[in-house]
Amino acid sequence: MDHSELTTFFLALGVLLLAARVFGELARSMNFPAVLGELMAGILLGPTILGALSPDLFSALFPESEGFQIGLQAVTSLGITLFLMVAGIEVDLSTILRQGRASMVISTFGMLIPFAIGFLCAYFFPVTFGAHESANPVYFALFLGTALSITALPVIAKILIDLNMYRSDLGMILISVAVINDLVGWLLFAVILGLLHTTAAQSMSIGMTIGMTIGFTLLMLTLGRFLVNAALPRIQAYTSWPGGVLGFAVIGGLLAASFTEWIGIHSILGAFMFGVALGDSKHLREKTRHILDHFISFIFAPLFFASIGLRINILDNFNPFLIVLVLVIATVGKLLGSHIACKIIGFTKRDSLTIGMATNARGAMEIILALLALEAGLIQEEMFVALIIMAIVTSIVAGPLMQRVMRHKRPPRLIDFLSSRSYIANLDGLDKDEVIRELSQSIAPIVGFEASTIEHAVIERERSMATGIGNKVAIPHARIEGLTTPAIALGITRQGVDFDAPDGVPANVILLVLTPRDDFQLQLQLLADIARTFRNEKTLDRILQTSSFVELLGMLRSEETQGTS
Amino acid sequence: MDHSELTTFFLALGVLLLAARVFGELARSMNFPAVLGELMAGILLGPTILGALSPDLFSALFPESEGFQIGLQAVTSLGITLFLMVAGIEVDLSTILRQGRASMVISTFGMLIPFAIGFLCAYFFPVTFGAHESANPVYFALFLGTALSITALPVIAKILIDLNMYRSDLGMILISVAVINDLVGWLLFAVILGLLHTTAAQSMSIGMTIGMTIGFTLLMLTLGRFLVNAALPRIQAYTSWPGGVLGFAVIGGLLAASFTEWIGIHSILGAFMFGVALGDSKHLREKTRHILDHFISFIFAPLFFASIGLRINILDNFNPFLIVLVLVIATVGKLLGSHIACKIIGFTKRDSLTIGMATNARGAMEIILALLALEAGLIQEEMFVALIIMAIVTSIVAGPLMQRVMRHKRPPRLIDFLSSRSYIANLDGLDKDEVIRELSQSIAPIVGFEASTIEHAVIERERSMATGIGNKVAIPHARIEGLTTPAIALGITRQGVDFDAPDGVPANVILLVLTPRDDFQLQLQLLADIARTFRNEKTLDRILQTSSFVELLGMLRSEETQGTS
Repeated sequence: MDHSELTTFFLALGVLLLAARVFGELARSMNFPAVLGELMAGILLGPTILGALSPDLFSALFPESEGFQIGLQAVTSLGITLFLMVAGIEVDLSTILRQGRASMVISTFGMLIPFAIGFLCAYFFPVTFGAHESANPVYFALFLGTALSITALPVIAKILIDLNMYRSDLGMILISVAVINDLVGWLLFAVILGLLHTTAAQSMSIGMTIGMTIGFTLLMLTLGRFLVNAALPRIQAYTSWPGGVLGFAVIGGLLAASFTEWIGIHSILGAFMFGVALGDSKHLREKTRHILDHFISFIFAPLFFASIGLRINILDNFNPFLIVLVLVIATVGKLLGSHIACKIIGFTKRDSLTIGMATNARGAMEIILALLALEAGLIQEEMFVALIIMAIVTSIVAGPLMQRVMRHKRPPRLIDFLSSRSYIANLDGLDKDEVIRELSQSIAPIVGFEASTIEHAVIERERSMATGIGNKVAIPHARIEGLTTPAIALGITRQGVDFDAPDGVPANVILLVLTPRDDFQLQLQLLADIARTFRNEKTLDRILQTSSFVELLGMLRSEETQGTS
Repeated sequence: MDHSELTTFFLALGVLLLAARVFGELARSMNFPAVLGELMAGILLGPTILGALSPDLFSALFPESEGFQIGLQAVTSLGITLFLMVAGIEVDLSTILRQGRASMVISTFGMLIPFAIGFLCAYFFPVTFGAHESANPVYFALFLGTALSITALPVIAKILIDLNMYRSDLGMILISVAVINDLVGWLLFAVILGLLHTTAAQSMSIGMTIGMTIGFTLLMLTLGRFLVNAALPRIQAYTSWPGGVLGFAVIGGLLAASFTEWIGIHSILGAFMFGVALGDSKHLREKTRHILDHFISFIFAPLFFASIGLRINILDNFNPFLIVLVLVIATVGKLLGSHIACKIIGFTKRDSLTIGMATNARGAMEIILALLALEAGLIQEEMFVALIIMAIVTSIVAGPLMQRVMRHKRPPRLIDFLSSRSYIANLDGLDKDEVIRELSQSIAPIVGFEASTIEHAVIERERSMATGIGNKVAIPHARIEGLTTPAIALGITRQGVDFDAPDGVPANVILLVLTPRDDFQLQLQLLADIARTFRNEKTLDRILQTSSFVELLGMLRSEETQGTS
């Protein structure tokens, strides 16, 4: 790359990442998977929107020149390979073993039925299902079967965490089903890629490629796991930390990627399997995991997913009939598979529906699969678009549908109900009553009640029970008749106000918590979340140093534990 | 890149990173900067060694094909740009302001004198100093002046931390001198690059380039700093954490890099200046800093530094006369500059020597500068090699020389004196005396004393003072006549042995600490380090779960605080 290509290279990466992150965050804030926003960013910057509106700007930002294109490919290939390694690390093999029979039955039928449906549809109606004209019909049928039978582990994990079901029995079964689906799905797809490459006159015979793929997978799950587990403590003992382990992870991922690329399947399978072996070791520390996960998931993955939109014009290849068709057979297959499996193991209908809906989410994995199939000349662009939309829709609806079936609610959090309008950086009040009055006045316009009503209810409550919880925090609160949603006012006072805390220390942070009259549980959950948030003394010190609502919110968010992201 | 190029791409990256990390760790373990090992790795895999021994293997691993070369360039360019951003984050502007006059005087003379020497030498003897035949003599002279006047901030910081001098007055002065040198040096070099590009018929006039460079720098240090500081809490408040801030950092670095590449200086200056603005914000959290620092310093930076060795045959361009010449004028310049400055501000001769030696370390910055000058056609390959060797030698000798001048010693650490031979995973003893006997027997062959002598001395000491320090740890110890270096035996007992700890809880981890008779301070430091290491209850739980010496060592190392790496 020369001077001008380098300029564009950095600019394009910066703009692509910016758009991907912004839309990814927007998607998250609407409770959609981040990958949806990242794809949208690419579609906006790609031929579909920017290329159509201003072809000049588009080709200035993403020039056709070979240097630029190869540079971009190098970064996105590296990105997706490392991302699959992180996905592999998240796979927990021991969960599968622990769940045993139920998850084996569910994953078997949950893959077999969609696979059969996909295979038969594709085999008998290849043109309808957007096969590439030059594609081998059997390979295409194998591909569609695989594409319909996979399940997105990360999406399911995220939904379960959001619904507070991750550690439940059903949650663990779902996770292990998704893990098995992931492993088997990738292996199947690797075999298809092997078949394709061999027909394309590779140096290796077809049997050789498939044999090596299966051999590599088995070796990684046995000897590989053992060696990685034996190597990690030695690396931590004799190299700088965490650099030694970080380097080991990336080196292993790259070498495994190179190996699987060499045997004729795709680089990402190798990185994924190495990730599985690595993530299985009990010696891999949380901190190393976080550094890899955060840097790769927030930088490399968004760049990759956004770059997909640069390749194709979605509108030109938008076939509503095909999209609906793919969506229907995908969903029917998963629901049917789950239904049969649940009959066998004696689960209820509601469980069957929950499992069907959850495993129907295809997420990022489907998108990667579709892209590889497009690159391999197996499917046409219309089918590519249909698969991507299917992946997005199934992922988006899985959460709300499961929530409805389970009648489960996401536990309420303090930060959901804070507002800049009910934040007081410096309370004037010198005692309990004055402070409660101030906070009541700030929150009154938000909830639409008289300040005096609120004040009265809170002081009443305060009389029956002191609300200083210690550690310089007080939570005066009340349940209000006619209130439909909770509201919280937060005030800070440097001098401290006595709230009869058990530790005898005056409160510096006062939260006025209003909840609906009848929802006693909601109130409990909110108070518990507040107590948990302020458990840590450092959090309190940091809050006392903030000077604006935005700073406070940023502080509270970054204080949250990271296990849920 | 096609299938075979991608295979090689992943393989080459994996092998390069593997070699860079291994040699980097080796260098660290010998107390050399890691960059030395990383460069060595590249030289080994490059034309100098591998290319000479087996040209076939070399060209198979690093093929000449355009796709591969551009792919590698994309990754290393991205790597060095992000690395400079991290280097920028480490710059602490407030330190400069606090140190005031002393650091201003020292940095002024510490740059002016070497710059003048470099400029004059290069201007009057361009051929001797390896100017490229087509290089403009004034630009070449400006370059050599700059190359001799810079100072490696990271190397100095590392040495000061190792010598436990980072927070001392002299340490802070040295850091702020290095920061000023870094900033001014890069600015100077950016101007030279601007001059070069302009002569190469750029679209922008020379005045424009220089004006925009200075304008950009000033803007980043004022408005940029302000905007970044205002943006960070908002990003933390309204985006997922730490993804929002990570994305912001990388996006900002990339866009700034693109801008400076566009105005005709190098991309890395933009990333560096953005890093300075970012690192200056008090809202940037430690965790975000660590993720960026660790992933980039341990993955991208080693790849970049190792790739330097791939470009050039060191042996073919090894000119001993030039190397010695560059080394001498570089060192003389820094020592003289520091001498004059210290005269003015009234520092002692010893301080002047320490400062001269420290600021003489050129480190990674010099290597990057030399590479850019080579690429810009300013210097010949022999001079490139000489500058790299000068950078390495000045960095390596700075630590030991400063240590000698300051008569300062690195504080002793527990992990330096543990040995697998004196580690007992399961102590048999049921009381103090039995346990001390076991540990004495295991340590005896290591120190070369009779076990009974040791046992006697330790029990004697134990009688005068109980060594249970609480938190389930005991440190029986003794100073031994004739012992020259400390030795520590570590034993674990599940049942617990009473060592009269203040908390009354029996000890599960027992460390037998032997130190030389006369070095009372050494003993104190070691005991303090042990107490600090085991302060945390979690550490103890983890230790009780380890089952081998290697695991224990890995645990202890990864437990260390990260501020010192």
